[in-house]
Amino acid sequence: MLVRDEGQGMTEIQVGLGERSYPIRIEKGCLATLGEDLVRRQVANRFAVITDDRVAGLYGQAVLANLRKAGLQSDLLVFRHGEASKNLETIASLASRLAASGYDRKDGLIALGGGVVGDITGFLASIYMRGIPFIQVPTTLLAQVDSSVGGKTGVDIPEGKNLVGTFYQPKSVHIDPAVLSTLDRTDLLCGLAEVIKYGVIRDPAFFNFLERRRAGILALDSADVGEMIRTCCTIKADVVEQDEREGGLRRILNYGHTIGHAVEAASSFAISHGAAVAIGMVAAARIAVAKGMLEKQEGERIFSLIANYGLPVAVPEGLDRNLIKTYLKTDKKAVAGRIFYILPTAIGSTCITDQITDQQLDQVL
Amino acid sequence: MLVRDEGQGMTEIQVGLGERSYPIRIEKGCLATLGEDLVRRQVANRFAVITDDRVAGLYGQAVLANLRKAGLQSDLLVFRHGEASKNLETIASLASRLAASGYDRKDGLIALGGGVVGDITGFLASIYMRGIPFIQVPTTLLAQVDSSVGGKTGVDIPEGKNLVGTFYQPKSVHIDPAVLSTLDRTDLLCGLAEVIKYGVIRDPAFFNFLERRRAGILALDSADVGEMIRTCCTIKADVVEQDEREGGLRRILNYGHTIGHAVEAASSFAISHGAAVAIGMVAAARIAVAKGMLEKQEGERIFSLIANYGLPVAVPEGLDRNLIKTYLKTDKKAVAGRIFYILPTAIGSTCITDQITDQQLDQVL
Repeated sequence: MLVRDEGQGMTEIQVGLGERSYPIRIEKGCLATLGEDLVRRQVANRFAVITDDRVAGLYGQAVLANLRKAGLQSDLLVFRHGEASKNLETIASLASRLAASGYDRKDGLIALGGGVVGDITGFLASIYMRGIPFIQVPTTLLAQVDSSVGGKTGVDIPEGKNLVGTFYQPKSVHIDPAVLSTLDRTDLLCGLAEVIKYGVIRDPAFFNFLERRRAGILALDSADVGEMIRTCCTIKADVVEQDEREGGLRRILNYGHTIGHAVEAASSFAISHGAAVAIGMVAAARIAVAKGMLEKQEGERIFSLIANYGLPVAVPEGLDRNLIKTYLKTDKKAVAGRIFYILPTAIGSTCITDQITDQQLDQVL
Repeated sequence: MLVRDEGQGMTEIQVGLGERSYPIRIEKGCLATLGEDLVRRQVANRFAVITDDRVAGLYGQAVLANLRKAGLQSDLLVFRHGEASKNLETIASLASRLAASGYDRKDGLIALGGGVVGDITGFLASIYMRGIPFIQVPTTLLAQVDSSVGGKTGVDIPEGKNLVGTFYQPKSVHIDPAVLSTLDRTDLLCGLAEVIKYGVIRDPAFFNFLERRRAGILALDSADVGEMIRTCCTIKADVVEQDEREGGLRRILNYGHTIGHAVEAASSFAISHGAAVAIGMVAAARIAVAKGMLEKQEGERIFSLIANYGLPVAVPEGLDRNLIKTYLKTDKKAVAGRIFYILPTAIGSTCITDQITDQQLDQVL
């Protein structure tokens, strides 16, 4: 990994994955220079910009105009926003539209949007004609700090989320923090849960920064938000470089997600991903304290930071605990029925274990 | 690549692709030792055998019993035979059945059947939970000599064949020539077209063998068929090793397929893949002769061999030539509208060119 500070608030992080290496460009306003940037990088001559109806209304025409101005042939393909679109029917429909417009192996896709858009577009790029290039242009905080980096793609099937997908890296990621101004508070909090996760699992100084700069971050102060995104992408790139296909280290990124996914599913997705991850992070920290693996005081700091950012810290009273436990057992990452938890052992360090008793689980749910 | 003759008619060819390397085992009767073989190779402890209703009736229960006898947990997942099943709906349905039965990343799939079964199963394995191991057990000649080796997977969309898919290698390929006895003549001829292709593009001695041993091959003589399958798999493995993702050399395997695919599509798939490839190989050879790139006499040998095996050598009179040309232009391998043809320059050698005039094409259609 190589981090270059290019001045004027522009940073480029090179994710080192051999022939699949790619840059993450972070710069306020870079949405307006996407076209010339893609021309310079020579990714493709023609792009289908894939987005949802919400993002299309905000940035669709501007991006399209920008690409065309740079001399790139381009089309806008829009699907309905929301997790409900993240399925194989949407993939089939988009693939048909690409084929009908004559897209071939030398053409590319651009994912313009949040996590759902990125997951769908990346998956489509990985299977259309057995793989064509694609670009990530994340427009939510969650996508900017997490899902746009690392090459996980996929869609849902009725039996569970992300149960079909691929590991497929983008050719580049273009992050414009300016677009966060159009994000609503729920989506911002969703991303902040993942941001806090990086501090807990990997970086005590960053955790400290999040404690100190909370007001600036919540007010979307440019310097604070830029620093925050750069740090998150650097940590994510570092982890992905060491373990692209989640054989080992990368599993630490699931901190808060094992219980979080089960809570999310048990609520029929009424609880947002970010809120569920926040609840999961607190639960995992409490298990770690109960097992004597984490100092009580450190657990308190995790709890307080999450609460202070306005994220939930406990499973809502009405939610069926048994249903949560049922979902835990069918987690995609369970192996031969064993459920693995990422537990913090200090701020900045974790361990992975399946030695959690039902009783320990009950106490934190 | 490593070819080991292990005596008693058993050959093992090692396809060398780094960490994606795998063996092709060719042995009469090896279907009956599949279970113990998979136990020895430690691929997975649990397998879903995926097949179509025809092959299920012939070999489904025997394979299942064999796996279970070897101590491997296994299930049989059956879909309706035929190209019409090769779509994303079948993939979605199979993925749901795997998830409902609790299949996880440590479990595996077995493709038991012809090209359609192999393409579907390989694609499913490549995307289920972002990739699980799979085994090829090809039961048609076409699948044994061609589609089971090399890692091309995929399904059709209404706009064209194999327009979504992946490059994903199996963990091993198990070829039992004994199963060819249950194959009907059309399916046998389908495979023989691909067999002849290998001789033309890569191996004059093998071409000669196919001329000399025609009677034995058509009568499914054990020694002749064994020799034929071994040679084809060796050539295919050699080409795939040098160019796994079809960036260059691997394109020679498309000899006969550019025009062939267009003929197949123009006939609404009334003409079988093998017959269409035979027609395409003759057409490409005639173009090569017309351009002065191939000796007339060599062209005649190609023509005669294909005709003598009972394969068609000309586009049927009733078929719309303009429709064929329309399909040529939308070929998946066309790049920015340019159509590439593999032309033989001698028996055993080819070149690739897009310098074919409409007139030259018209003369051979």
